Amino acid sequence: MKKCVFIRHGQSQWNLENRFTGWKNVELTDLGRKEAKNAGNILKKRHYSFDVVYTSTLTRAQDTAKIALQELNSNVKPIIDWRLNERHYGALTGKNKQETADQYGAEQVKIWRRSYPTRPPLMDEKAARELVTDKSIPLTLGESLEDTVKRVTPYWEQTISKDVQNGKSVLVVAHGNSLRALMKHLFRISDADILELEIPTGTPVECELDERLIGKKYSFLTE
Amino acid sequence: MKKCVFIRHGQSQWNLENRFTGWKNVELTDLGRKEAKNAGNILKKRHYSFDVVYTSTLTRAQDTAKIALQELNSNVKPIIDWRLNERHYGALTGKNKQETADQYGAEQVKIWRRSYPTRPPLMDEKAARELVTDKSIPLTLGESLEDTVKRVTPYWEQTISKDVQNGKSVLVVAHGNSLRALMKHLFRISDADILELEIPTGTPVECELDERLIGKKYSFLTE
Repeated sequence: MKKCVFIRHGQSQWNLENRFTGWKNVELTDLGRKEAKNAGNILKKRHYSFDVVYTSTLTRAQDTAKIALQELNSNVKPIIDWRLNERHYGALTGKNKQETADQYGAEQVKIWRRSYPTRPPLMDEKAARELVTDKSIPLTLGESLEDTVKRVTPYWEQTISKDVQNGKSVLVVAHGNSLRALMKHLFRISDADILELEIPTGTPVECELDERLIGKKYSFLTE
Repeated sequence: MKKCVFIRHGQSQWNLENRFTGWKNVELTDLGRKEAKNAGNILKKRHYSFDVVYTSTLTRAQDTAKIALQELNSNVKPIIDWRLNERHYGALTGKNKQETADQYGAEQVKIWRRSYPTRPPLMDEKAARELVTDKSIPLTLGESLEDTVKRVTPYWEQTISKDVQNGKSVLVVAHGNSLRALMKHLFRISDADILELEIPTGTPVECELDERLIGKKYSFLTE
């Protein structure tokens, strides 16, 4: 039996303000930092130590990883990759969810949030280029969850899974939707069901995989 | 470390039709029966055997228990109690969720579904009496999730927890909201977060509790 652990970053300022965040860099709130510390502490009590840590290019995930690793007295340096970024919310980025509902209708917003193949309205190219300073990241104007799955899964297959297969202890600190993408792939969750999966912030998710790396069981560690 | 297992019943006809179900007796669909069988099979592969099984007065939960127990070659007879029933959805019972949104507005429906202390519009007394033939069950006209927690928690404290404490292997087969109520209590989940917890249908939830029966970890068994 193989294992790996995921953590969804703690609360950010825009989670608190109920705004679509996507690829925008938004800081953790005080509560978010506490959640990160708590996640590290839960793992410490269970005597976890990690050989490899993966995170996204976004500071809220990197800061969550840093705080959790401090709590674990670990000096592992996380590997950063844009393919673990949150789903890109296109032109909705920064918009308050209620304002968006007023503008486009609640039904349409529900579709953008809860339909697997539907993209949000796209961001204009200039704004998208300004959002991402690293020019090695492909220009992205907005993603459906399906799009997110299509960039996360190859990264798992080509990179992260190799470490798990080789018996390394792996932690991934990422985002609601990039973790949904990983869980969908590992646990064979359907397109319809994956959007119902709510991964709590700052709660370690322990995944048990068989020898072929097919998910058998996932656990939320709460204390 | 103590353990217990919960199963949320498989898909019912009204889940499929996207209608509020509550205390109405609605049959499992073919998919719902398959989900129940699959849940039993997952537990069988893990060599589970149960000393005590609890379920609600509603046939969709009882049938799920029956099918899962058959798969486990178990002849344990479930203990039936109304306090494990689904949240009572009052006057919304039987209504399609989209029709309800058209009638009352999407925002109001969201509050009924996602606000912890808010009750649905109440059912009239005559209809509520017709819905429940067993006169020993207190007359109920509609519940908030808070109301549901207030009847589920004492049943856990006074009855189910005794079996777990005594080292018995316990299975509870119940409903989305009565299981939320149990998880809220065991894992100290906040009023705001509990409504975000989606328990998948027909997926065994394995709970690990410490000696004081405080939840340490909950796992979704997927294969």
